[in-house]
Order: sequence, then structure tokens, then C-alpha cells
Amino acid sequence: MKFEIKKRDAAGRICRFITKHGTVTTPNLMPVINPNKMLITPKEMKKLFGTEMVITNSYIIYKDDKLREKTLNDGVHKLIDFDGPIMTDSGTFQSYVYGDVNVDPIEIVQFQRDIGSDVGTILDVFGTPDQTKTKAEQGMKETLKRAKQSVKVKGEMALACTVQGSIYPDLRESCAKKLSSIDGDFFPIGGVVPLMENQRYSDLVRIILYSKRGLDPSKPVHLFGAGHPLIFPLAAVLGCDFFDSSAYVKYANDGRMIFSWGTGKLDDLSELPCCCPVCSQFTASELKKLDKKEAVLQLAKHNLYVSFAEIKKIKSAIANGSLWELVERRASANPHLLEAMHELQKEEHKVWLEQSESTSKNKALFYTGNNTIHRPIIYRYHRRLLERYKPLFDTTVVFPEGKKPYSKHYARQIDEIRNKTDANILISSHLGPVPIELDEMYPFAQSVFPKNIDKETEAEVAKMFDEFTKKENIIFWEGMKTLDELPASKKKKVDKDILKISAVSDMQFGKGASKALFDGEINIIKSKKTDKIRNIYSNGKHVLSMRAGDGLFTLKIDGARLLHKSFKYPKLRVVIEKDAVPFVKEGKSVFAKFVIDCDPELRPFDECLIVDKKDKLLAVGRALLNRTEMLSFDYGMVVKTREHIK
Amino acid sequence: MKFEIKKRDAAGRICRFITKHGTVTTPNLMPVINPNKMLITPKEMKKLFGTEMVITNSYIIYKDDKLREKTLNDGVHKLIDFDGPIMTDSGTFQSYVYGDVNVDPIEIVQFQRDIGSDVGTILDVFGTPDQTKTKAEQGMKETLKRAKQSVKVKGEMALACTVQGSIYPDLRESCAKKLSSIDGDFFPIGGVVPLMENQRYSDLVRIILYSKRGLDPSKPVHLFGAGHPLIFPLAAVLGCDFFDSSAYVKYANDGRMIFSWGTGKLDDLSELPCCCPVCSQFTASELKKLDKKEAVLQLAKHNLYVSFAEIKKIKSAIANGSLWELVERRASANPHLLEAMHELQKEEHKVWLEQSESTSKNKALFYTGNNTIHRPIIYRYHRRLLERYKPLFDTTVVFPEGKKPYSKHYARQIDEIRNKTDANILISSHLGPVPIELDEMYPFAQSVFPKNIDKETEAEVAKMFDEFTKKENIIFWEGMKTLDELPASKKKKVDKDILKISAVSDMQFGKGASKALFDGEINIIKSKKTDKIRNIYSNGKHVLSMRAGDGLFTLKIDGARLLHKSFKYPKLRVVIEKDAVPFVKEGKSVFAKFVIDCDPELRPFDECLIVDKKDKLLAVGRALLNRTEMLSFDYGMVVKTREHIK
Repeated sequence: MKFEIKKRDAAGRICRFITKHGTVTTPNLMPVINPNKMLITPKEMKKLFGTEMVITNSYIIYKDDKLREKTLNDGVHKLIDFDGPIMTDSGTFQSYVYGDVNVDPIEIVQFQRDIGSDVGTILDVFGTPDQTKTKAEQGMKETLKRAKQSVKVKGEMALACTVQGSIYPDLRESCAKKLSSIDGDFFPIGGVVPLMENQRYSDLVRIILYSKRGLDPSKPVHLFGAGHPLIFPLAAVLGCDFFDSSAYVKYANDGRMIFSWGTGKLDDLSELPCCCPVCSQFTASELKKLDKKEAVLQLAKHNLYVSFAEIKKIKSAIANGSLWELVERRASANPHLLEAMHELQKEEHKVWLEQSESTSKNKALFYTGNNTIHRPIIYRYHRRLLERYKPLFDTTVVFPEGKKPYSKHYARQIDEIRNKTDANILISSHLGPVPIELDEMYPFAQSVFPKNIDKETEAEVAKMFDEFTKKENIIFWEGMKTLDELPASKKKKVDKDILKISAVSDMQFGKGASKALFDGEINIIKSKKTDKIRNIYSNGKHVLSMRAGDGLFTLKIDGARLLHKSFKYPKLRVVIEKDAVPFVKEGKSVFAKFVIDCDPELRPFDECLIVDKKDKLLAVGRALLNRTEMLSFDYGMVVKTREHIK
Repeated sequence: MKFEIKKRDAAGRICRFITKHGTVTTPNLMPVINPNKMLITPKEMKKLFGTEMVITNSYIIYKDDKLREKTLNDGVHKLIDFDGPIMTDSGTFQSYVYGDVNVDPIEIVQFQRDIGSDVGTILDVFGTPDQTKTKAEQGMKETLKRAKQSVKVKGEMALACTVQGSIYPDLRESCAKKLSSIDGDFFPIGGVVPLMENQRYSDLVRIILYSKRGLDPSKPVHLFGAGHPLIFPLAAVLGCDFFDSSAYVKYANDGRMIFSWGTGKLDDLSELPCCCPVCSQFTASELKKLDKKEAVLQLAKHNLYVSFAEIKKIKSAIANGSLWELVERRASANPHLLEAMHELQKEEHKVWLEQSESTSKNKALFYTGNNTIHRPIIYRYHRRLLERYKPLFDTTVVFPEGKKPYSKHYARQIDEIRNKTDANILISSHLGPVPIELDEMYPFAQSVFPKNIDKETEAEVAKMFDEFTKKENIIFWEGMKTLDELPASKKKKVDKDILKISAVSDMQFGKGASKALFDGEINIIKSKKTDKIRNIYSNGKHVLSMRAGDGLFTLKIDGARLLHKSFKYPKLRVVIEKDAVPFVKEGKSVFAKFVIDCDPELRPFDECLIVDKKDKLLAVGRALLNRTEMLSFDYGMVVKTREHIK
């Protein structure tokens, strides 16, 4: 089994899960197959919905003498006639529904191994949300014990070790950590069905987040029992890779249709609000007239079309960097999902989520409502502003939100001010305070907001503004009658371009970067067409290029030398093993298994210094993962090398 | 041509548009057919997407000698091989694109009539958004002149008279009014394409609203040139009935895919975020590999599947009373749409929108974010609270938002208070102030909010609260330490049920209703199972029933007699013509053409008194439309009679 990350957005990711029965691209959905009664066969699912992996229940097979024998002889792939990867469940959910199951926890794992399951599941103890902490801890400990025993008998089968711990964050995190330390391959987050049934999405989010904190990020995570697409985007943005659906058939049996925004009873619908092949073939009244069996089949198909479409939407959103937008859009469909968004806004979660956020995206940031201001990228920018940006002057003149880029929109006013006095220019933008030097940097120039923002965003922005300015020596341009209100004190000659490259490099690489990079004669080359900064030479050496798309720097090898000299280990570093050094010296990219250490402050898409164990600079490149991820993944590219030392 | 309303939600509506070539259920979309180059034939569209009506361009036919002759001989239905209703455009858009068209305005109308178009369009003067008001007014006047002349030659063809007036609200309203006074049949809102191209949705909304103000509500309204589903829900909630799409093929030619939340370039997509038959048959890479012609065809099909699905979603939302929720959900996909939502929140628009809002719905009100608090139903409730509800006592005790129904949740506390003193009980709910007597009334008990609301909603709610309480004699339960803080003054015996039926009847029927209905001995019958109020007898007569679903009253004929006696004309009345009297006396429902007058304060779903010209009470029923609609529609049921005087 291999699991490698291909693309990412927020804590969500597109990965390849490679088994001997084929490869699955995650996030993905495994339809639940009842071996006794297949409404739609896995083969047909593959054809109709592009299903890559399914899940079936080993306990049901095990309990039936005939079925057990047959499956032990022929294997589970033959039983359900599917040549793709198959996951098996262990009977845990049956124990939750019926109170207990009559099977030995180790025997059922061995059985799953023996029938050739690709991913078998331990018989974990289902922790319900209403348990006391003591009870939940007992269950969690028993789960851990069984996991440790099960690992020993798993053979070649990948073993799914389920995180339990009821609704208690510390139990979830501790369970996740302990499971990650044993040789598990796949981590379901269990015990969540009762939460979903009661739309307790806020609790669900907390459980996912605390489980993820503890889990090895290089292993697939499965939100066990989550089959309604309403929850898929939110779970995916937190890093869930697998979902399973028995909902498609349960809901169909009950005459209910699944939609991305909720559920509808066919009987209540006069129109089918969907364009899937089923809803394109039938009208609502035609569907209602079908005989029960055929109607259930068509509804089940609709439910799977819609569920897999949501998976495709998530993948597409990860690929183009709009996953938060999808999540926020979906949240507006259900007040309980909005409650879950509120949970995400807690400081502890923001801190965790920020680590996975890419430094830049090819896509503009779209405001969707008052959840947008709480995105990790804005949280990061604000933290960095406080830590890495130092205003030059005592006085700050503040302009209101305006057309972008602000430096062009307010060019005349800024000139007037700077001719008269030394003042910082600050935009009180819809994203928070933006020093004018940073106005082309992602996400400021690349954000789309409505003219009028809501009071929630307004209050959040005001808080950031006050924290940044400390309300000292502030002059609001809009409140000014004449320029005479400015303190007249023109001492320094201000070069706007130098201010800009200094501020951006400090924000991007860290405090002190500008000093390290621009110590000497600076030559700035601009685009003739757009007049935008392109290349920067320091003492005759090309140290940086500024990207037109996101206003951030590409670090050249000569710039890397300067930062390497100036910044202490491990700042900006990715440290690689001896074996990989010759390859990187030839300009090859860095793969996960060769990384020994890494700057904990590096974020995906950050420029980084590739060094050997002795901190000798080898090359410069772009990090694709953060530290935790780099150190835990075994497969895949983690730094794209751009330039190496010859 | 007939146009009758079947279902409604907000200012949106499901209507039947009946032509001699068949019936169209609106809101609906007419794909644009190029008679020279049909990518998908209308016949195929009908089969694949359920297309009911198409639009083609008479000017293109007219300009081509051969085509003109052929179509004059065979008719336009044969030309494009479609037996359903066909609308034709006149060349106005060509005049906008190419500067001018070489055709006589009246001749092109006659031509459309002669080729058998079901709906022909006048050659209006396209008003662009950048015009001065003088220029816009000139164009509008010329449009009006042509409309008046065109009406004379329309023959049996329905004539579409396009509203112009650029971005000037008063011009739009005046143009709409004047067009409604001549014999037009169909009202496109024109000149909006440049606004949509620049995503100026806020201007678009204002134009639609002012056009609708002036238009005869009994005629179909067409948002001319609006082909992207992103705008459909918002336009539909304001009362647009028709859309046309040339976008499906234009976008396809350009390699672009239409989605309900925006547009994506196929080349940029690694996954197809959709479940339509095209996206279910092909993967993204398969689509990319198709030859250009086939790719355009498949993209065009996708675009139409998605566009028609949005129409079905709108119809479904109107049918189940969730159109505002769909609109708000969609608005979160695009900051410019959010800006348009802000436009809707202006007092003038709220006043207009309130008139169309149904008194009650079968569906709970879902909070989707900070737009929800601005819905017309909440605006109405708050206005009525100020006008129709009178607190009984000097002191008011306020409880915070809690479980519903509030009277049950806070039962113990309320008893404690009322045992000690005479006080009004008020809930400071997420929807605004709710006197405890109204807690089961729609939409209070029937609303779903997250625990934490945003600051925008909070501020709006606080404003309503202050306006209602005038901050006088308010005691907050949460701030109270002991009951001793209450003024001790127990004078009146309070009967909770009497308070409730009095408050609800005043809110529902108007000030004074409780006095009229409950003057004498009151007998309240409750459900044994739920202990909820069911039937109310006044002096032995059954005057009201309370509905469990929405906590509002059904008016019985004996209650109607009391209100009729007490309320002056035209309060609660629907006045019908002599011819209809015998039918209503037999219990038949009231049809549009028999209504002479109506209470301007009646709202859809309101209980109403059916009277004759002399204000003699005939029956009681439920209004389906408001006054303006009742008086303008010629077809369809407008009051559902429930009980009549024998």
C-alpha cells in the first residue's frame, strides 16, 4: 500500500492510494455493498459513477456459514465481483446497533486478511456521544489494545485502525496519536454516525480536528459512516480522504433523494432539482409512478450520481484552490453547518489549519459571507504582519478600501502626502490593514469582495486594524480637510520600490530577509509593458524575481545564498539525506523519504533552501508540504527544485 | 395566449403560459436557436432537456432573401422543425452590437406575425448602461412609440414589448407602466446584457425591481439576454418568468462550462464538478481529447443540462417555499451577487417585496447567513408587531433565544414571574423580539438558526428590539439575581390562552380582531394529545381553528361574520362580481376575472372575507394572491373558498 499526496488546498488534499487491486484518487467515496443483496453491482458502479473502491461487511460474511466458506475459498473480490480495491468493515457498527457481536476481535481481522480484503478494519469499540468520559476512555483503551493485537496478524492487508473517544477532544487526540505509533495503515474516525444523524456538525468538526491533530498525516483518513454529501466538503477541508455511503440505498428505500444541500422526499417534489442521468431521464411524476423496486433502484442511482459529483467538486476545488469557497457555500445550506463553521473559528483550530494553508494560489480569494474573514490565510497574514512587518515612520495615513491595486488607485494622494511628510500609508481593506507596500501581494490584490461588507467582517477587520496600528498616530485620509493636518517632517527620501521589495521579502521569508538581501547596490528591473517589478539585482547578482500573478518573490540561487548566510538553521531549510544530495546537485526535485528535517515555519508553496545534513546549501526550490507532512510521508515529491548550486 | 399563476413564493411564481403551440410552465428557459446553424435541434432539446419553448431571431431570417421566402411560405415552426411555442427576436440586439439595423420597426413585427411566431418582439431601442438620462429617455420614448404602433399589427401573435430606460429607475418604472397600458402580452426587460457581462448585479436587481413595479403582474416577464444560471434564482425571486440562453453555445465555442456557481474553462479542470449525463459519460481528460466540433457539442449539452437543472431547482424551491434560501445560497458563490442582495435590503424594495410574501409556508425558515434577517417575511412581522400588537403591562421581562416553543422551554420561569407580577414576556430571538403569546406563530416556531448568529443579524435584531420595546421598563431575565427585582403588582388574572388567541388574531387579521372575535364567553378546545389550542368558540359559536403547523388561525364562517361586522370595508374583503355570486354561494372558489376589488393589505395565504358589491358576506376563504395580482390576472383561482353562508 502506498499513499502519496498530489495536490492540496487547506488541510484538504488529493492523494493516490495505491493497492494491489488498483489506485484510488482521494478524496473518494466507497459505496457500501451488501454481499447478500446488491442493488447495484460494484462493476456497474464503476461504469456509471467511476467508483474506484467499495466497502463491504466482513462480519455479515463471517456469520453466514455458506458465505464464509465460499469467500474463504474464492476471495472477497470474487464474492462481490469487483477487481478494484475493497475495504471490509468488522462488525463494529453492528455492535453499536445491536448491542454486541459474537466474534473474536482478532479472528475477524484474520478472516478479513484471509478473504483477501485490501483494507481490513479492527473490531473497535464504538464510542457514542452520550458516554461519560470514563466509559469513553475504557472503550478507547480497549480499541487501542485490539489495534495493537490486530496489527500482528494483518499480513499483507492494510489495516484500518479506528479512532474512538466519543466527543472528548483529548481522548480523540490521544487515541489518534497512539494509533499512529503502531503499524496501522488507514485511519477511520469512528463513532460519528449518531452525531450526523442529529446534525451535530459542530461536535463532528471538533472530533475530526482533534483526531487529525494526533494522526500521522501520511496515512489516509476515513470519516466512517459519513455518506451524505452535505458533510463531504467540510470534512475534506479538514483532511478526510475517504467517505463511505450506505445512505444511497437506505435513503432510496425510504423514497428520499440526496442533494448536495440536503435531502428531499420524492413524494414532496413536483420537480427534480437535479441534472443527473436519472433526473434527466425521468420527471418527478414519472419517477413516482415506477414500481417500488425500480423506483428504489433509480433513486439509489441518483443518490450515487449526486454523491460522486460532490467528490468531483471537492477534487476540482482542491485542484484550483477554491476548497474554502466550496465549504462556505455549502455551509449556507444548513444552519447546523454554519454552527460548525463557527467552531472552526476558534483560535486553536485556526492555528492548526494555518499550517496547511498554501502561501499562494492561482485563484482569487472570493468573499462568500462572514465566514471568509476567518480563513486561515487571513489569520496567517495578520499574524505575520504583527511579527514581520515594521512600519517605517511615526505617522500613518489610512485610506479606505478602494480599487486594486491600491497603490495605483491612490497614487496621486500618496505622492501628495509623501512630498510633505514621512508617513506610512495603510489601507483599511475588507481583509484587514494592508500597508501600501504589500498591496500586490497575495491575497490582497487577488481578492474579490462586495462593496458593502457585513458587520461581522467589519468587526473582525476593525479588531485587526486596532491590533496592528495600536491606534497610535493615525490620520484618516477621509477625515482630513487639508494636507496641513499632516505633521510636516520630510527627512528621508523614500524610494517606493525599495520599500515594496523590503516589505514583501520580510513578510514572505521572515524578519531580516530584506536586510540580508538588499545590503548593497540594488538594481530593480521592471516590465516595460506593465511597469511592474520583475527582477532584482543586489550588488550585480540576480537575487529575486517578482511574480506578476501573486506579487510574491521567486528566490534565485544567489538570493538563497544571502538568506542562507543570514538566517540561522533551520529557518527556510529543508534538510536532505546524503543519498539524495547528488540528485539535488543535478537539479532533481526532493522526494519525501529523503527529508531529515525542515523549518517548522515553512508552508506549502513557500520558497525554501535545500541543504545537506551539515547545512550546506545545495539548491533552492518550492516546498509542497509543511514540516509535519514532509517528515511523515514516505512517497511523493515534497520540494520542487528550481535552481541548484553548480 | 393565456397566463395563469399556479404557485408562488416571494415575488417568484410558477405560471402556465398557454399558446396555440402548447403550454410552458414558467420560470423557464428558451434556448436561442440560430436558424442557419443548429448545434442541437429544438426537437432534440425537448427530448434531452425537456425544453418547452425556444427563441430564434426573425431579423436573421428576414435579412436572408431565400430564408425569408421559405419561412413566409412554411412558417417558422417548420423552419426550425419544432412544434412547441417559438418566440422571435426583432434585431434589437443586433442594433446594439452592430450600431444599427436596416429594417422598419413595424415591418419586422408584421414579418414575425406572418411567419407564425407565437411571441414576436418589437424593435425596441437598446438602452446601454452608460447612456445619459436624456439619451436613455429618448430611446425609451422611441421604444414606446414603436410598441404602440406594433400592437396594431400584431394579429394573433402575442407581442413582446421590451422595457427600456438604461439604469434609471424612474425611466424603467415609467416605461413599464406605459407599456402595460397598451395591449402588450409579454414583457422583456431589455438592455441588461452589458450589466451581466460586467457582473453589475446590483444595478440589474434595481432595474428588475423598478420594471416589475410598473408592469402588469398578470403578464410574463422575460429577462432578455440572461442566459447564465448564476442569475436565475435572484431574477426569479423578483418575478422574472422567462430567460433565454445563447450562452450555452457561446460558452461552449469558447471551451467554457457553465455551473450554477459560475463558469469554468474545460482546460483548467482536472475533474468535471457535475453529474449531468455529459459529465457522467466523460472524464475531463476524455472531453479535452474530443475533436473541436464534438467537444463543442458536448459542452453545449452540459451547459443546457445545468441551465435547465437550475430552472428545475427554482420551480422546486417555489413549490416548497424555499426560494429565498436558494437565492441566498447562490449569492454566496459570487461577491457581486452578495452586493445585489444588499440592494434588496433597501426599505423601498422591502416594502415592495413584502406585498408578495405568503403569510405562511409549509417549510421551516432556514437561516443561511446574514441575508436571512432581511427577508420580507421578517420585515412584515416586525412592522405588524409595531402596528398590531399592544403589550398589556408596563413591565417587560426578556428571555434570551432558547429552545422552541419558547413558552414550553421557559414555562417554569414564566409562571414564577406571573405569580408575582403583571409583566409582558418577550423573547429576544434571533429573528427579533417575540412576545411569548406569538411563539408558535409562523415563522418563529418554524425557523432554524445556528446557536451563534453573526454580528450583522445581531445588530439588525437589536434595532428591532429597541424599536419595539422603546427600551422602557425592560428587565432581562439573565441579568436578574432574584425575583425580588420585579415590581410586585399582581392585579390582573392572566389567562395565557386568552392572551395567545388575542395576540395571534390581532397580528393575523389586524388590530381590533380580538375584540371583535372574543366579545363574550370564550371556550377553547385543546388537543388531548398535544395540549395545543385547536378550536375556539365565542358565545357558543365556532369562530376559529388554530393550525398546528403554523400556529395561525383558520377563520370559520361564524368568525368571519364577527370580523365582517366589526371591520370596515375593504378590510379583509375580496369583492366579487354579481355573476360569480351564485357559484360562491354554492361553495365554489373565486376566479381572477370575477374580482372587482380587494383589501390592499391582504397577502397570499391570508384568510379573507368574500363579499358582493354591496359588501354582503358570502363566504370565507384563503387568498392566493395579493390585491394587485387579483385585479390584474384574468385567469386562475385567486381565493380558495372554504365555508359559505347557506
